[in-house]
Amino acid sequence: MDFSIRAANLDDCKDIARMIMELAEYEKVSDHVKVTQKDLEQDGFSKNPFFHGIIAEVPEQHKTKEGHTKIGYALYFYSYSSWSGRAIYMEDLYVMPEFRGKGVGKALMSKVAQLGLAAGCHQLNFTVLNWNKPSMDFYLSQGCFDVTATMDYHCMRCEGEALKHLAQL
Amino acid sequence: MDFSIRAANLDDCKDIARMIMELAEYEKVSDHVKVTQKDLEQDGFSKNPFFHGIIAEVPEQHKTKEGHTKIGYALYFYSYSSWSGRAIYMEDLYVMPEFRGKGVGKALMSKVAQLGLAAGCHQLNFTVLNWNKPSMDFYLSQGCFDVTATMDYHCMRCEGEALKHLAQL
Repeated sequence: MDFSIRAANLDDCKDIARMIMELAEYEKVSDHVKVTQKDLEQDGFSKNPFFHGIIAEVPEQHKTKEGHTKIGYALYFYSYSSWSGRAIYMEDLYVMPEFRGKGVGKALMSKVAQLGLAAGCHQLNFTVLNWNKPSMDFYLSQGCFDVTATMDYHCMRCEGEALKHLAQL
Repeated sequence: MDFSIRAANLDDCKDIARMIMELAEYEKVSDHVKVTQKDLEQDGFSKNPFFHGIIAEVPEQHKTKEGHTKIGYALYFYSYSSWSGRAIYMEDLYVMPEFRGKGVGKALMSKVAQLGLAAGCHQLNFTVLNWNKPSMDFYLSQGCFDVTATMDYHCMRCEGEALKHLAQL
């Protein structure tokens, strides 16, 4: 299938916001999504962005019945491991259902890996919902490993009132 | 106990490298540490740094028998959640054993929370080794929650030859 991968720009935020919601619906957590198109525009495309993005796009003749040509995305940011140094973190990887199984997801992830290596990163990190077996199988098939399973790492979070309370020492 | 928390600077990298190794020894993974003082200097204190740091320091009269006055640190970087937006990630939190139980760890973590809130972040994220019960108990007591336990999130990684292979689409 004919598709291209390119850096996301400000004009892509509407479609990224749409696909973030589609992904959350697939993950059964759409009520968790607070991020809006405007947030994405501000947080990803101003000075000192909090993330970067890449977009998978198909030609006009392959557009969806709703008229979408932007059919997948990945968000990423640079991070750091105090053991191994520079790292890149992939926050999301999504391909619209009707375009799956055609190498789009792999191409997006490969691009994130390329960007990471070009920046001197030694690791590509991300999280996956453990019940999402198709995704887990895909990642394992790409040589990724499950740090939670092998090293007993747990993801932790502080937010809301607890975060405000923590900040008030 | 008298101590202060301040932003880390280039001159702190020697002590941060020492404490990274101490933390890894505590976590029984010192053979995993590849990061050197020079890496920290380059990656944290040049243009577009991969991380930021804060240092806990005691006055001269409380220095360790080895002469250390820098007795704890945290590393952090800004990140992004496609659900909730701006976030801050705490990569490490460490206090030298003889200075534990005096509020230094909480003061370091509180500072990271303050920095996150000031930057408009809605979440403070980090990982913990699940067998490290004292740390897990401390984090839970601060209102943090275990995203792996509650939402089945697993940390995933691609590195080394697998990362190079992934980049070669």
